[in-house]
Amino acid sequence: MIRVGIIGVGTVGSHVVKILQENEDIITARSGKKIIPIIGVVKDTTKKRDVNLPLSSDVNDVLDNPEVDVVVELMGGVDEAYKIVTRALKNKKAVVTANKALLAYHRYELRDLAGDTPIGYEASVAGGIPIIKALREGLSANHIEAIKGIMNGTCNFILTKMMNEKAEFADVLREAQALGYAEADPTFDVGGFDAAHKLLILASIAYGIDVKPEEILIEGIEHINSEDIYFAKEFGYNIKLLTIAKKSGDQVELRVHPALVPITQMIAKVDGVMNGISVIGDRVGETMYYGPGAGGSATASAVVSDLIDIARHTQNSPMLGFIKPLEKSGLTLMNRDDICTQYYIRVTVEDKIGVLSKISEILGKHSISISSFLQKQDVKKEERAVLLFSTHTCKESNIQKALQELSQLEFVELKPAMIRIEA
Amino acid sequence: MIRVGIIGVGTVGSHVVKILQENEDIITARSGKKIIPIIGVVKDTTKKRDVNLPLSSDVNDVLDNPEVDVVVELMGGVDEAYKIVTRALKNKKAVVTANKALLAYHRYELRDLAGDTPIGYEASVAGGIPIIKALREGLSANHIEAIKGIMNGTCNFILTKMMNEKAEFADVLREAQALGYAEADPTFDVGGFDAAHKLLILASIAYGIDVKPEEILIEGIEHINSEDIYFAKEFGYNIKLLTIAKKSGDQVELRVHPALVPITQMIAKVDGVMNGISVIGDRVGETMYYGPGAGGSATASAVVSDLIDIARHTQNSPMLGFIKPLEKSGLTLMNRDDICTQYYIRVTVEDKIGVLSKISEILGKHSISISSFLQKQDVKKEERAVLLFSTHTCKESNIQKALQELSQLEFVELKPAMIRIEA
Repeated sequence: MIRVGIIGVGTVGSHVVKILQENEDIITARSGKKIIPIIGVVKDTTKKRDVNLPLSSDVNDVLDNPEVDVVVELMGGVDEAYKIVTRALKNKKAVVTANKALLAYHRYELRDLAGDTPIGYEASVAGGIPIIKALREGLSANHIEAIKGIMNGTCNFILTKMMNEKAEFADVLREAQALGYAEADPTFDVGGFDAAHKLLILASIAYGIDVKPEEILIEGIEHINSEDIYFAKEFGYNIKLLTIAKKSGDQVELRVHPALVPITQMIAKVDGVMNGISVIGDRVGETMYYGPGAGGSATASAVVSDLIDIARHTQNSPMLGFIKPLEKSGLTLMNRDDICTQYYIRVTVEDKIGVLSKISEILGKHSISISSFLQKQDVKKEERAVLLFSTHTCKESNIQKALQELSQLEFVELKPAMIRIEA
Repeated sequence: MIRVGIIGVGTVGSHVVKILQENEDIITARSGKKIIPIIGVVKDTTKKRDVNLPLSSDVNDVLDNPEVDVVVELMGGVDEAYKIVTRALKNKKAVVTANKALLAYHRYELRDLAGDTPIGYEASVAGGIPIIKALREGLSANHIEAIKGIMNGTCNFILTKMMNEKAEFADVLREAQALGYAEADPTFDVGGFDAAHKLLILASIAYGIDVKPEEILIEGIEHINSEDIYFAKEFGYNIKLLTIAKKSGDQVELRVHPALVPITQMIAKVDGVMNGISVIGDRVGETMYYGPGAGGSATASAVVSDLIDIARHTQNSPMLGFIKPLEKSGLTLMNRDDICTQYYIRVTVEDKIGVLSKISEILGKHSISISSFLQKQDVKKEERAVLLFSTHTCKESNIQKALQELSQLEFVELKPAMIRIEA
C-alpha cells in the first residue's frame, strides 16, 4: 500500500483523488499495490470542494506525517514549494510534482538532494502527454539532436484562430480569455515564459544543461499581426510558438519564440489548445508526441502515472535522465547572437520610389540574402506599403543589426518585425 | 556492467551493436553501467558483415554462456524463437526481443515463465516509437477506451501514394517493391497480418486480453481502388490501414482493416512510411505517438532503450502491464458480427432505371440508413455506373448480409466492396 498526501487540492488535485478512487481497479492491477490518498492540504478548509478526502490547512500534517509515503505537490509557485519539497525529501518521502516553475529554477538542487528518493514530474511538461518518460527512457539510446515543441495551449489556441480566421491578436486573446483558455493577465503564457519553463526541464533530460529561464531567448506572440498570417499562408507556413532545444557542436540553443513552420511538418499540424513535441534522436530520427497539454484530468493522469511508477519501484530511472553526469560533454548554452536560422521580416514603409533598394542594400551589408519577397498595400493606410521578406539562413546578430538600421530609416513607419523560420 | 548476446545479427542487430558502441558515452551516463555486446549468433559466420562483434553459429554460445546477462532475440519467426527465449528465461537471463510474431502467439506463456526476469519488447511495435512504454507506464492511470494505430509503413506508403496521385493499388505496390518498402510477397504487410500482431501486443497491455491473430477481424488493402479514393477525397476522408482496439462494455473489439478517417483527425495526417498510434484514455483523452515504425536504426533505438531500462533495474513495470491480473474485468473479444460502425459501400452496376431503388430497398431491409451518396460513370466501361454510399452507424452483420444480397442482383456487375468509416 502507498499512502499519498496532496498539497494543493485545486482542479488537478481533485482529479488526482478522483482517478485514484474511481480507477482503483486498474491502478491496483497495474501497480500491484493500493495507492490511497489519505490527506490533502488546502489554504481554506471551509471552502466547498468536490473531493472525498480529509483536508487540513497545515502542511506539517503531510510533511511530518509518518503515514504519508508520497507527497504530491500541486500548490504551484517557486519559493514556498521549494521549501516544502525539500522538507519532504529530507523526510525520505517520495515526491510527485506538476510544478514547472519550481523545476525551471531548482531541478538540479532537488535532484542532488533526492538521491535515491523518487521525484516524479511527468505532469510538469505538456500535461497528459508522457513526454518526460519518452525522453528519459524511451529515447535513452539516442543523442538528442533537437526538440521542437508546442507546449503552451493558450498560444496555440490564439495562433490557430488567427491563422484560420485571419483575425488579429487582441481580438482572439479576448475570446480566449472569455473561454477560460487565457488568464486575465496573459503575459506568462503569451509572453513565452510558461513554455520556457517546460523547455528547460526537457533540456536537462536531453543535455544535462543547467540554465535558468532568464538566460535564454524568450519572445512572445503579442506582435504577430494579420500581415504575418498573410505571408505565412502565401508561402505554406503555419505560425506556432515553438520551444526549441538544439545541439550544435558543443553548444545547445535554447529558445522560445513564434516561428514559421512549413505546413508539411507534423508539428505544424498541432492545432488549437493541443500540445505536440517533436524529438529528433540521432538513431531513431523524428518522433512526435501529441495530446492535451493542460486540464485537470489530463494533468492528473500524469501525476497518477508517476505514483504507479513509484509503487512499481521503477523510479530508478534518474530524475534528470543521467545516473552519471556527462562529464565529457561540456555542453554550454549558445549565445543568442550566434543562432543561425532563416528569418521572416516585415517592414512597413511610406510607399515611394527607392525604398526597396535602400532596404536591400542594408540587408546585403549584413550578409542577409533574401529568399522570397512580397509587397502589399497597408490595409489600414493607403499610402503605406508592407514589405514582407524571408531570408536564407543567417546569423541572429546580423538580423538584429539590420533591424536596428531599418528602424532608423526615415521612410520606415513602424518598428520592423521579425519572426524566425524553422524549416 | 551488462553483457549482451545477440541472436540474429542482421540489419537491426548490426544497428544495436553500433548504437551500443558509438553512443557508449550517453548510454553509460544514462544507465550508470557499461552495456557491452560480447557475442552475436548468425547462421553463416563466413558472410561479411559491417559489425564489430565476435560471431558464432551456435545459439548455445549465448544461451549457456555464463558471461551473457541479457539475450537480445532478433532472429524472427515463431517456433524457434520461442524455444530460444524460453531457454534464456529458464537460465535467468533477461530478454529483449523485437519479435512481434513470437509475442502475438506466446506473450502470456512468456510472461508467466519470466516471473521477475525482465522481458523488453519495445521494438516489437512501431519501431522507434516508445508506444509500449507510453501505454504500460505513461498512461497507466487510465482505462483505455480505444487504440487506433497506423502500424504498417508499407500499407501507409501505398495508401498515401494512392491518395496523392490517384494511382491504382497494383501500380503503387510495384513501386513500393522497387523502393524496398514492400516484400516480393507482400501478403504479410498488405493483408494486415503484420499490423494484427502488433495490435494484439498493445491490446494485452491495455486490456489484458489473450487472443490469437486467427481470432480477430483482419482485412487488407488489396481491394481499394481509385473510386474509393475519389469518394474519400470528395467527403473529406483519408484512407488508412487502421488497427483498432476498442472497449465496448465488457467486450473488446479487435480489428485490422482499411478505414476512411476524417482528415481533421491527427491520425489521418500520418503519411508515407511513418507510423502513428492514437490512444484514448478515460482520464487523459487522446494522445498520439508518431514516428518511424521500421528501419534498422529506429528499431535498434528501441532495443537499446530496453537494455538501458534493464541496466537501470526499472523493468519492474510488468511485461504486459499488469502485476495482478484484472480478475473482475472479464473482458472478452467481441464477435465481429456485433461490431457497430459506419460503412462506405461501392456497387458497380449496369447503368439502367430502377437500380438505385432496388439497392436502397435492400439496404433499408437490413436497417442500413444512407448518410451520403455519389454516383459516377465507370471510367473503364461507359455503360456501367459506380454507386458510392456511406451509411450511418449500423451493425456489421447487417452490412455483410446486405452485401451478400447486393452481389446476387442481376445488374450488379462486380462484387460490391465495403470500407469501414472510423469517425
